[in-house]
Amino acid sequence: MSEQLRVGMVGYAFMGAAHSTAWRTVNRAFDLPLSARMTAVSGRSPEGVAAAAAKLGWDEHTTDWRSLIARDDIDLIDICTPGDTHAEIALAALAAGKHVLCEKPLANTVAEAREMAAAAAQAASSGVRAMCGFNYRRVPAVALMRQMVRDGRIGEIRHVRATYLQDWIIDPQFPLVWRLRKELAGSGALGDIGAHIIDLTQFVTGQSITTVSALTETFIKQRPLTSGSAGLAASSDGSGLGDVTVDDAALFLAKLDGGAVATYEATRFATGRKNALRVELNGSLGSLAFDFERQNELEFYDAALPTTEQGFSRILVTEADHPYIGAWWPPGHGIGYEHTFTHEVRDLIEAIATGQQPTPSFADALQVQLVLDAVSRSAESAQWTSVEPALEPALGG
Amino acid sequence: MSEQLRVGMVGYAFMGAAHSTAWRTVNRAFDLPLSARMTAVSGRSPEGVAAAAAKLGWDEHTTDWRSLIARDDIDLIDICTPGDTHAEIALAALAAGKHVLCEKPLANTVAEAREMAAAAAQAASSGVRAMCGFNYRRVPAVALMRQMVRDGRIGEIRHVRATYLQDWIIDPQFPLVWRLRKELAGSGALGDIGAHIIDLTQFVTGQSITTVSALTETFIKQRPLTSGSAGLAASSDGSGLGDVTVDDAALFLAKLDGGAVATYEATRFATGRKNALRVELNGSLGSLAFDFERQNELEFYDAALPTTEQGFSRILVTEADHPYIGAWWPPGHGIGYEHTFTHEVRDLIEAIATGQQPTPSFADALQVQLVLDAVSRSAESAQWTSVEPALEPALGG
Amino acid sequence: MSEQLRVGMVGYAFMGAAHSTAWRTVNRAFDLPLSARMTAVSGRSPEGVAAAAAKLGWDEHTTDWRSLIARDDIDLIDICTPGDTHAEIALAALAAGKHVLCEKPLANTVAEAREMAAAAAQAASSGVRAMCGFNYRRVPAVALMRQMVRDGRIGEIRHVRATYLQDWIIDPQFPLVWRLRKELAGSGALGDIGAHIIDLTQFVTGQSITTVSALTETFIKQRPLTSGSAGLAASSDGSGLGDVTVDDAALFLAKLDGGAVATYEATRFATGRKNALRVELNGSLGSLAFDFERQNELEFYDAALPTTEQGFSRILVTEADHPYIGAWWPPGHGIGYEHTFTHEVRDLIEAIATGQQPTPSFADALQVQLVLDAVSRSAESAQWTSVEPALEPALGG
Amino acid sequence: MSEQLRVGMVGYAFMGAAHSTAWRTVNRAFDLPLSARMTAVSGRSPEGVAAAAAKLGWDEHTTDWRSLIARDDIDLIDICTPGDTHAEIALAALAAGKHVLCEKPLANTVAEAREMAAAAAQAASSGVRAMCGFNYRRVPAVALMRQMVRDGRIGEIRHVRATYLQDWIIDPQFPLVWRLRKELAGSGALGDIGAHIIDLTQFVTGQSITTVSALTETFIKQRPLTSGSAGLAASSDGSGLGDVTVDDAALFLAKLDGGAVATYEATRFATGRKNALRVELNGSLGSLAFDFERQNELEFYDAALPTTEQGFSRILVTEADHPYIGAWWPPGHGIGYEHTFTHEVRDLIEAIATGQQPTPSFADALQVQLVLDAVSRSAESAQWTSVEPALEPALGG
Repeated sequence: MSEQLRVGMVGYAFMGAAHSTAWRTVNRAFDLPLSARMTAVSGRSPEGVAAAAAKLGWDEHTTDWRSLIARDDIDLIDICTPGDTHAEIALAALAAGKHVLCEKPLANTVAEAREMAAAAAQAASSGVRAMCGFNYRRVPAVALMRQMVRDGRIGEIRHVRATYLQDWIIDPQFPLVWRLRKELAGSGALGDIGAHIIDLTQFVTGQSITTVSALTETFIKQRPLTSGSAGLAASSDGSGLGDVTVDDAALFLAKLDGGAVATYEATRFATGRKNALRVELNGSLGSLAFDFERQNELEFYDAALPTTEQGFSRILVTEADHPYIGAWWPPGHGIGYEHTFTHEVRDLIEAIATGQQPTPSFADALQVQLVLDAVSRSAESAQWTSVEPALEPALGG
Repeated sequence: MSEQLRVGMVGYAFMGAAHSTAWRTVNRAFDLPLSARMTAVSGRSPEGVAAAAAKLGWDEHTTDWRSLIARDDIDLIDICTPGDTHAEIALAALAAGKHVLCEKPLANTVAEAREMAAAAAQAASSGVRAMCGFNYRRVPAVALMRQMVRDGRIGEIRHVRATYLQDWIIDPQFPLVWRLRKELAGSGALGDIGAHIIDLTQFVTGQSITTVSALTETFIKQRPLTSGSAGLAASSDGSGLGDVTVDDAALFLAKLDGGAVATYEATRFATGRKNALRVELNGSLGSLAFDFERQNELEFYDAALPTTEQGFSRILVTEADHPYIGAWWPPGHGIGYEHTFTHEVRDLIEAIATGQQPTPSFADALQVQLVLDAVSRSAESAQWTSVEPALEPALGG
Repeated sequence: MSEQLRVGMVGYAFMGAAHSTAWRTVNRAFDLPLSARMTAVSGRSPEGVAAAAAKLGWDEHTTDWRSLIARDDIDLIDICTPGDTHAEIALAALAAGKHVLCEKPLANTVAEAREMAAAAAQAASSGVRAMCGFNYRRVPAVALMRQMVRDGRIGEIRHVRATYLQDWIIDPQFPLVWRLRKELAGSGALGDIGAHIIDLTQFVTGQSITTVSALTETFIKQRPLTSGSAGLAASSDGSGLGDVTVDDAALFLAKLDGGAVATYEATRFATGRKNALRVELNGSLGSLAFDFERQNELEFYDAALPTTEQGFSRILVTEADHPYIGAWWPPGHGIGYEHTFTHEVRDLIEAIATGQQPTPSFADALQVQLVLDAVSRSAESAQWTSVEPALEPALGG
Repeated sequence: MSEQLRVGMVGYAFMGAAHSTAWRTVNRAFDLPLSARMTAVSGRSPEGVAAAAAKLGWDEHTTDWRSLIARDDIDLIDICTPGDTHAEIALAALAAGKHVLCEKPLANTVAEAREMAAAAAQAASSGVRAMCGFNYRRVPAVALMRQMVRDGRIGEIRHVRATYLQDWIIDPQFPLVWRLRKELAGSGALGDIGAHIIDLTQFVTGQSITTVSALTETFIKQRPLTSGSAGLAASSDGSGLGDVTVDDAALFLAKLDGGAVATYEATRFATGRKNALRVELNGSLGSLAFDFERQNELEFYDAALPTTEQGFSRILVTEADHPYIGAWWPPGHGIGYEHTFTHEVRDLIEAIATGQQPTPSFADALQVQLVLDAVSRSAESAQWTSVEPALEPALGG
């Protein structure tokens, strides 16, 4: 059979479970030149990681992530930990010649992200690949959206309208999980879900955000302390209140380098909106709209049709010739959230096997980080703020 | 200015109000060769008809409908009474050389409908016009649907799926209004709303129903007696219970003469569905779907588009070049229920002025009556039942 | 019958047609203490105003709007002209003791709006009433939204998300109509449709915008010159190109005085969106969402329901006990755009007859004007900009 | 770890792939008392089955299904072949004391289904379990629908409206695959997809169909011959035309034993409808509606809410306390088609481990077969036709 790509994964919570599904499934769904092997998983809790390894299907487990990097029989490090540890792990892995898949956001600071992008660029020269896990790019409807924009189906893009709306912390009694602590998460809704719509809109439009005007808000300033969390659910441990140090919501206006103007909103306080990652693009020839709560659909308005027949069409993105769908089920049968990760590792394996740069690269992810940074600075200064160039001035000269 | 078309209306309840709006509005919205004049209205209650005349805008009022027909200064009789009186009024009006607009269903029995159609045919030879008020044909989205079918946009029609769902009598305490009494209404959901989807589907497909298998059901067998009702709202008068003598729901399968097969359902027990007149057509080249609860929209699936771009499009039927819309508001602004009546009298005035047969003619309405009759007979006999030909054998030979 | 309210209308184009429908219909639909009489209409073109008077149903017509104000037999002046003339007409009318209904936006400048609000305040003391025509407040679904917010159904409001999306000028060949010329229209999408969502969101939330960060954009800088336009349709007159001097799109972030944060977007370049006035409110107990393209519906999410049953419900706002609906049709039958104007004049007549201040008052409309002004200034300065207080400091002391 | 349930699967095409995913995933997602082991798969083509075993994850493979039954190290036989072979395989497996999971429809004839149900009943007495694979019962939204009906949330059910609409054979050039040949498939749309809506509606209502009036139609009578097919896609082999011997569409009216009346429609000619399995229930207290094309949603109308707030709510069935969802992702993230199979084998494993009868049992599936048979007989005779009792008269006495 095919040669193996031996994976070591760091972290085993929400993202770890999603990535494990992907590694376990990818070669069942797709014909690929490399076969993923789930060699080992690491995590801080000995019991936790042992249970996770058994449940998620990893051959071995450890509490020492450095040991994964040290092993000769591991080819790729998959980083599924909170953002504060991404840089250290990724840099070590790249230095050891391991391919890296790193969850988003790339890092908690621009400085770290710059270092990671530089390391990835250097590693690439010796065939080592690094990719950042913006999984929503691999929703078939989003991939189709990208393809249709590139094919000119909506012409010149004038408007981008992006929201990522959730509501999982509207209850003031919801505890202070790591995602609400700046030292671990870097930011709140902004980095967690805002990062996704920044990446996704830049991806589908092919345009980059150049300048932003932002505001952020923390509606609930203190929350019950907690010792743990799983996914987006958690409970308090009764030991008092702590300060929420991240944003509950981030809103910003933006200009893109292709001439489009945009509104962005990421919030965890949109009551009733569970995972409403929505993007609408209005172009000179048509429009496209997507809502992840209806992930198997893409809306398309074609202004070239006869006037009396124009309308937003609901494309069920479940046809065999839609992106990624050939691997799955007949028309209309629908896929789910975890498939985006399977598609992600599919493309990563393909890139590694064929010696190409997977996307989004660490450089792409750095650019998202720079936008996040501009948004934070704009919210703080209450000024329009330019997104810094990815290349440092000295290097850019 | 233009010559007048002087109207005398019989009945002033729900339909009377809708027709009055139409007569009052039609020359404001459309440029027409004749100007409608609301000459007089008749009704049984002296106080009721006086109040209605004032409120609805009729110059005069009377309790004697025959006096309207006797007047020289009335050109058209508009019949808005319950179905049991349609035949008598219409026949008298036609005999007197008055044009007639008669609410649907044309009559409560086939025999009456046949007589009316014959009278209308005869009157036509002397330039007197008769039309039946199936107003939903004049929803712009329905008119567009007809146009697109005729233009071959969905090819050969294979499936018709029609429902008319309401829920205004699900409360067992809702009283025994005239619409629930066979002697006045002829039938229940079947004639009241089933008639609309029979007419509408035959209209948009251009096919006629040939044979049906039906069932009808009366869920609530007895209801409180009442002395009055307005629109679809009413209250009991405390004088005890009476038998519901019509169907609450009518369901039937049908074959159409163009090869399509169909399901029909008319009910007043579809909890939460307020006026869900829905029709879907599936053809060899595409599909069309309509729901009156979203009356400004038409859904269209074009199977000739590239596979990856096919989807049901939501056409907002509010463009100036959509049927009837030029008379109204800019794109997206939307119109409502009463506009269908304005469109109806617009087309009627146009037909009278130009000496053409307005549609649906009494013959068309007779055909609907024949389908209703076949449905009733099928429900009673539990047999597939053919729709009788409109022409009596003796005449048809 | 009831006493009359004699109306003189200035302007007879798009808004004039809508207002005429309202005056013609209001006493047919509602029982009111005053009966509207359509006494006279004025307009600049002798032929145009004569034709309009006949078509729209006005007793008389003139080319001199001042003559309407001079007449003793006119009680109310209804201003339907472009914004540059509002102030002069309204001030003259109020000075003459006429009630005034003025289309939105109140004026083209804050200075004019201040003067108008002051005049209205003064006139009120002698029983003369002034109202600004933000008709979308009177969509039944919007009125219900206001009612539900006031009743605490969604708790404390955290997010406002408002767009008004149109696409009628995406064609670069669409000519330079008055709405695209600053000297006549004051601004572009901002004042024309942005004003509606500013007023509507302030109305439904009961909160006022305090500060904004905005950007505006003109995508097409020059367009063919034209001599006329009707509604939102127009054609070029072949005499060359002229500069578009207003915004095609206006986007802004805002903070409201009750603690909510908001995004606003008004554009005429949202291809496929015809009249997508959309507002979503997220509160601590629920959410509400509205889209004018589906004007008979309101979406409501009630976070107090059992978790497994929570969802956005589509309320068909067509029940007799919904705002304004008792005057119209049975459940599910639906109303259209012009009904909002009928509701508007209904409430105005009621206020005049009962000696109360109709809303939105000129003071309310001034506040909208101050937000528009802050948005314009913010877009120009690229700074967060506070909305000026309605009262001038000297007066406010 | 837990004890194993060793599975031997027969057939490896569309259903084989879906079942393989389920067996591979079930213990990763759910904590269960038995651990599924994918011991061996059988299929007719030596190359085909070898490739499938590798791709789908089966330890071994064979071309002889009888060898699976003969093995001591296999506990359960999973039947994923066309319907003509179900009876022989299932009977042999049950006789050998193997648990059986059999794809739907249970068999191609009532006689076979009766024999299978009898064998399953007998096997049950010695602890051997048999289940039929109506996977759509395990869509979380459908399971929730069942739960809400059982909890009385919609009261007494009056209407059932069920369609299963596909369009994969509207092209007359689509070849004569096994699903279009009566000797292999038993029937066409009726048994393939009609069976699903029969089972699903009986499941969610808790009522059984007692009598039906049906029509079936074959729109395209002849199609190109083919040698193979995969999923619902196929190509002709150029060897001429063959007769289509099954129905393209089946429509029927039905009465249920709890008093509800129903319409059913299964078709492969609903252009644009890809997998529109739709069910709506109207009850005395509310309504529920489901569409598989939006499988993560359930619509609910609660007539007990205040009138002004009633509406169909779109419940996103993705909360941790919704059926099956605790095993998957956070709210709003959504699952896909294959999850229904994972839920199916989860419940089967649970039933086997706890010694309970899994549902749907072979007796349940026989009842569906009896309805299919009644529909076929009704279509042939053009008569209302009663569903035969599951127990043969002799046994039932």
